[in-house]
Amino acid sequence: MVVNISSSSEFIVTHPKLDKDEDVHNTLVRAGFLRQTHAGIFHMLPLGFRVQHKLESLIDYHMQQVGASKVALSTVSSEHLWKASGRLEGKDSELFRFKDRKDTKFLLSPTHEEEITSLVATSVQSYRDLPLRLYQVTRKYRDEARPRQGLLRGREFLMKDLYTFDSTIEDAISTYDRVRAAYRSFFTDLRTPFLTAAADSGSMGGNFSHEYHLPSPTGEDTILVCDGCGKTMNEEVAIIDMDEKTAVKVPANETCQSGKIDSVKAIEVGHTFYLGDRYSAPLKLQVKDAQDRTVNVQMGCHGIGLSRLIAALAAVKRDDKGLAWPAVVAPFCVVVIPGKGNERAAEDVASAIQTHLRLAGAEMGCKGEMDVVLDDRDKPIGWKFKDADLIGYPVVVVVGRTYQGTGKVEVQCRQLGVKETLPSIFDAEKKNAPAEIAGYLARL
Amino acid sequence: MVVNISSSSEFIVTHPKLDKDEDVHNTLVRAGFLRQTHAGIFHMLPLGFRVQHKLESLIDYHMQQVGASKVALSTVSSEHLWKASGRLEGKDSELFRFKDRKDTKFLLSPTHEEEITSLVATSVQSYRDLPLRLYQVTRKYRDEARPRQGLLRGREFLMKDLYTFDSTIEDAISTYDRVRAAYRSFFTDLRTPFLTAAADSGSMGGNFSHEYHLPSPTGEDTILVCDGCGKTMNEEVAIIDMDEKTAVKVPANETCQSGKIDSVKAIEVGHTFYLGDRYSAPLKLQVKDAQDRTVNVQMGCHGIGLSRLIAALAAVKRDDKGLAWPAVVAPFCVVVIPGKGNERAAEDVASAIQTHLRLAGAEMGCKGEMDVVLDDRDKPIGWKFKDADLIGYPVVVVVGRTYQGTGKVEVQCRQLGVKETLPSIFDAEKKNAPAEIAGYLARL
Repeated sequence: MVVNISSSSEFIVTHPKLDKDEDVHNTLVRAGFLRQTHAGIFHMLPLGFRVQHKLESLIDYHMQQVGASKVALSTVSSEHLWKASGRLEGKDSELFRFKDRKDTKFLLSPTHEEEITSLVATSVQSYRDLPLRLYQVTRKYRDEARPRQGLLRGREFLMKDLYTFDSTIEDAISTYDRVRAAYRSFFTDLRTPFLTAAADSGSMGGNFSHEYHLPSPTGEDTILVCDGCGKTMNEEVAIIDMDEKTAVKVPANETCQSGKIDSVKAIEVGHTFYLGDRYSAPLKLQVKDAQDRTVNVQMGCHGIGLSRLIAALAAVKRDDKGLAWPAVVAPFCVVVIPGKGNERAAEDVASAIQTHLRLAGAEMGCKGEMDVVLDDRDKPIGWKFKDADLIGYPVVVVVGRTYQGTGKVEVQCRQLGVKETLPSIFDAEKKNAPAEIAGYLARL
Repeated sequence: MVVNISSSSEFIVTHPKLDKDEDVHNTLVRAGFLRQTHAGIFHMLPLGFRVQHKLESLIDYHMQQVGASKVALSTVSSEHLWKASGRLEGKDSELFRFKDRKDTKFLLSPTHEEEITSLVATSVQSYRDLPLRLYQVTRKYRDEARPRQGLLRGREFLMKDLYTFDSTIEDAISTYDRVRAAYRSFFTDLRTPFLTAAADSGSMGGNFSHEYHLPSPTGEDTILVCDGCGKTMNEEVAIIDMDEKTAVKVPANETCQSGKIDSVKAIEVGHTFYLGDRYSAPLKLQVKDAQDRTVNVQMGCHGIGLSRLIAALAAVKRDDKGLAWPAVVAPFCVVVIPGKGNERAAEDVASAIQTHLRLAGAEMGCKGEMDVVLDDRDKPIGWKFKDADLIGYPVVVVVGRTYQGTGKVEVQCRQLGVKETLPSIFDAEKKNAPAEIAGYLARL
């Protein structure tokens, strides 16, 4: 089914006035993806929700590859678990805390190590019950001192968190490596450059961790890349002689004497932690091992900031015309815009493209849905072009003057620098318009 | 891909000891669908999450039929909006309220009329921008005085809420009727008897409403059905001479003189409200009409309690062996259980059934995913049967003694009273085992 943009179906509230100096958050608001309600708190509108939903589906795909099962833990957590793990208090606590009508003390989970450790502790007895890999995509809450940059540092936000449980350190590290590989596949599917960096474990505790970043001049993180050994790490963990820029010390204490250090601004979008028994020890998550000894379970936790990633992708991929989504997460892959008098024909064209893309997507083992939207609003065609550029559909199809009699449509693809008239939409040949469009999408 | 039940993939924690007196919540916990963390607060485990996810997909399908777009509004809401609508205070307020580090007052939304009315008020100007239909599936929060019966009356729960916006009362009522029809289709797809009843609008305000119930002896609602005029209504709104049981007065003041009243216990799972300008007036959601007059937008709101519906379906469909899900929302449609020595063969059988069901599902325009799980756990076959009965897979396939040499499998389908040996799984004929199984699923 082709979705029509119109007041009765999609709710798209855009303001296609170009403003080169606006930040990415303002572009997302102006393009109708989201709306701020309070500092750090947002409503996702239909376009933003579609991107979010496609990101979640792509994450589901890659989590299945590591044999992870999806759960949905409660957001309301209780103070006693956080007291047990030692994370309840702190001079700069970001926990939102509240009481119920009986004065029981609760908090809104900013992450779920405590809850899942305690859940699994009551569910496994033996090393035979492991490995176990559980993940969820839920909202988290953090009382940020300074919420800023829209979805990049919000107080109510969407996160994927995977928790892994193994009975030996060896197995846990092998699980960790498998998850890192899945993360690399996931970010590769986004068709956007990314960096992996060794990082500080910070408040999570644990033994070591890696961050995943999208390089962007607007990023708040600084990633250091050594051109000698190829090591990439977050500035926080690298001990560097910044004057010389010649030596990098990573936490494992490896040293490269020959390399030069380049620093890159980047946005953090994911983080994998090897936790060891940081949570299993205090929360008593233990199993019997093969020798019948009681051992602490070795854990990992692995996050992707979903709402944050939306803003990061928007920041990295936009240009001075608007947003420019990778096909796999675009709110729609293709928009069909009717020229004057071609309103009815545009419906047929949109349907023909949709049918072809669905079949082509199934054949290509496409991970995302290749979907088409028809812009049937009562607006001038020039206004619709600007709106399409602002929203950032990967492919724009115009059913214009050349269509009558020939069945030919025009296609624009800003990210690929394509602007051309395609063969007839109804040609039975292999190289008809829908096939060409599928080809463009495969490159985006 | 066939999902394997094993510690490395699905996380299924069941206790297949039969207990006839347990309530449905205990069955759901014992069958590994969910876990209670506090009164009225739950974690959904993989089996429960799968049911929830399939219900959400089915709802998405039916919401698309009424041209509704999906959004995701923030859960954190601010007190000023609720003050404006008059719902902030109240002697029995169920709002969870809290403050951030700057002492700003927030609350956790128990529903979203205030937020969506205020959002749409800043987005529409003219009757031409309407109708508008927006829905979401998000968590809600309610500080219940007495949380009980598991998911049926929780404090953190999942709800679908659709909000509709029209410029005239006539259009709004026609929208209301369209949504009611979509609700009927949705409940029909669940293959479970349901009742629609005229109801009181309660704290929502507005003009009239209808409730959707699953009849169940364990239900807390009483639905009255008049065998004269066929009217169905909630006890709360019916003014009845209960001694005579002969006359029903519905709010519209129609009277039936001939009918007799039957009362049925039921569980409420959905509610549609025609709100009129209950929220648009105080929150100033207005548009210019065709005559350029400023008018209040006419609203409707339409809820389905997703987590509640899971418990209601479990309650209605279970028997003394365990749960018995309708195929469209079962955690898996088919479980394949290997007999001793047939572990490898069972994998082939599961794959063959999965492949067939996927194609058959696509052909039948199946609304749910027809999925297969292989029980590869190291447990006796009798234990696996009991576990499958408890979990409530619609179809159980056994790769047992008859398989060797013949390729024949046994199938059990408790809800249909089926227990038979099917033709070879690999027969090229039309009536091979996978085709038979697809046929059974089409009836469940």
